[in-house]
Amino acid sequence: MVSNPYPERLKRCSQLMKEAGLNVLLLTKPSNMFYLTGDGRLCAYAMITQDGKVALGIPQTDVEDVKNLAHFDHIVGFDDEVGMIHSIAHNFEHFGIKEGTVGMEYTFLTQSMMGMLTHPHAKPTGIVVKDCTHLLSQLRIVKNNEEIKRIKAAAKVAVKGMKAAVAALKPGMTESQVAAKAEYAMRRAGAQEFWRTYVSSGPRTNIAHGPPTLRKLEAGDLVMIDIHPIVNGYSADICRTVCVGQPTTEQQTAYDLYLRAQQTTIAKVKTGVGMVELEQTLHEVMKGEGHGGHIFGPTIHGVGIDFEESPLPPGHAFFHGEKEPPPLEANVVIAVGNCGLYTGPWGVRVEDTVAVSPKGPIILTEHPRQLEK
Amino acid sequence: MVSNPYPERLKRCSQLMKEAGLNVLLLTKPSNMFYLTGDGRLCAYAMITQDGKVALGIPQTDVEDVKNLAHFDHIVGFDDEVGMIHSIAHNFEHFGIKEGTVGMEYTFLTQSMMGMLTHPHAKPTGIVVKDCTHLLSQLRIVKNNEEIKRIKAAAKVAVKGMKAAVAALKPGMTESQVAAKAEYAMRRAGAQEFWRTYVSSGPRTNIAHGPPTLRKLEAGDLVMIDIHPIVNGYSADICRTVCVGQPTTEQQTAYDLYLRAQQTTIAKVKTGVGMVELEQTLHEVMKGEGHGGHIFGPTIHGVGIDFEESPLPPGHAFFHGEKEPPPLEANVVIAVGNCGLYTGPWGVRVEDTVAVSPKGPIILTEHPRQLEK
Repeated sequence: MVSNPYPERLKRCSQLMKEAGLNVLLLTKPSNMFYLTGDGRLCAYAMITQDGKVALGIPQTDVEDVKNLAHFDHIVGFDDEVGMIHSIAHNFEHFGIKEGTVGMEYTFLTQSMMGMLTHPHAKPTGIVVKDCTHLLSQLRIVKNNEEIKRIKAAAKVAVKGMKAAVAALKPGMTESQVAAKAEYAMRRAGAQEFWRTYVSSGPRTNIAHGPPTLRKLEAGDLVMIDIHPIVNGYSADICRTVCVGQPTTEQQTAYDLYLRAQQTTIAKVKTGVGMVELEQTLHEVMKGEGHGGHIFGPTIHGVGIDFEESPLPPGHAFFHGEKEPPPLEANVVIAVGNCGLYTGPWGVRVEDTVAVSPKGPIILTEHPRQLEK
Repeated sequence: MVSNPYPERLKRCSQLMKEAGLNVLLLTKPSNMFYLTGDGRLCAYAMITQDGKVALGIPQTDVEDVKNLAHFDHIVGFDDEVGMIHSIAHNFEHFGIKEGTVGMEYTFLTQSMMGMLTHPHAKPTGIVVKDCTHLLSQLRIVKNNEEIKRIKAAAKVAVKGMKAAVAALKPGMTESQVAAKAEYAMRRAGAQEFWRTYVSSGPRTNIAHGPPTLRKLEAGDLVMIDIHPIVNGYSADICRTVCVGQPTTEQQTAYDLYLRAQQTTIAKVKTGVGMVELEQTLHEVMKGEGHGGHIFGPTIHGVGIDFEESPLPPGHAFFHGEKEPPPLEANVVIAVGNCGLYTGPWGVRVEDTVAVSPKGPIILTEHPRQLEK
């Protein structure tokens, strides 16, 4: 990191907290913690006050490590779950917060985690809990130049992963072995991690989420590959559909249609455009050819620290604890083509990561878009 | 699958539901759905009545695929989140359930998912919600022979992954590249998927959860590798710590101690033994050498469809929505050595998957346990 981005982020966070009437945040979602403190580890939390002070609660074992990575004012290490609960009480006390409203991540916290973090031994009784999902999304939606640089780096790694997977495709290999090729190439190219890889083939390309199985590729199969590397904490998202052998006319026609829908949508990406308009654009192209009933899932989603994040189209946004996103601003990054065209016997999908600019779309995942290998 | 295990599982489920006063289950956790129906996909749910009837709600795109995989009485496909909510209402109606108690997974459902699944348009107002985490754990805790076979297959794949990773270790490679070697080998050896890989090195071996980073291995570093392949839906769990070069006397002494603690604990694994006794055994060996303060995390956890599942030691069980597990029965499978010895500058850990039998432990992850490569 060239400069320290956290004071500016915490300042914007304070402003949004004031507007939302939140006195303090209690965050456990790794991506949110990473954005505001520089560290997002499991089994940890960040408490953030309205005046921008940060307290971390982490396993006792991790104290030295986190000191090298995170922006913070106060750290408490704990030994187990009981210690974690007491450390939260300690941090409320440390900041002198006895009443008010604490923002927590309703789209991340399970019922049992919520019970633990708001246990009577953790949270002062005068504190009420409210969802802060949308606040964090608002904070993170427009990327700064360093973030764009990292997403670009992830996009390059994603392309290398896709290249390796597509090059390896041949009858007899399993979906899992296709995933292996992509993942291995991504780690070699500089990915620290990746989000779950999806590889589906043959009739499995018709399902909404296709984690790899031991199904063996057959000649003539379509193969759908969807990968999401993480580089320096940031993600990219690419999906390609490729035929093992010669596609049928029906497959080629469906592919061409989906690609046209995706590319028409990408062409409209620009500062000031709304997510609804983009979603409708993609849907209209499909409906125009009688495939309105063969679409599943949001056509578009944001990309950043999480490979699926805000902005989401309004309908989906609502169910994911988000508000309707504002018109696109410059340096928002989205993946276009997240839905697919599912005909029944098979499906096709092409997805790219795109940055928004005042002049139009900047496509970050440049890799051939063709059904034939 | 040799025979159809679902009628027997649903019968046991019915019995536990009656005892717990649950009229119906609404499950979304993939492992629980997989256990009771044979299919555990994302973005789906299984509704299970007290008399063992199963209704599935899945994306419209997935209907044909799920028919080949799942045991069910009724399927509803949906197009989006609104459709999912309406499909739940439809299924309550289909089964004629207007009042009573629905069991839901509090350790899996986020606040927002819970809000969606219990939306007034989904759940009849006469139905109240209760946690069913422990019921599902009780169901799944003792494995049948087919499950043991699959866990053994996963353990063999885990050993191949560990072998590949350890063989590749050398100064200059990144933690992520070590993970790449293990994951690639596991997919080649027949893993359909794997749970998140942990690789930490040097000072990072002292942290509780070490996802791989771009840190480069240096001569003399300890490297901690923790992997969990999935084969035919079942997992195994293995962790090894290996030195890149010559360990120091302190490192060797700490390693020998931890290994002795782990092996002493494994030796006690047998039908009728309690989780508390096993946890105490491991802790006592460490405390005896003055390392009582250098342990983090539960020493033991169950292994099955999830690589971390019930049984858990009582303290942890409570915080994970579980009740205290009963004394070990034959065909329970556990991972022993899940905590570690964290000295400060570095840590060591050795973990193996072990099946319980009346005659003692059956170690499934046979791979050398030595600090020197």
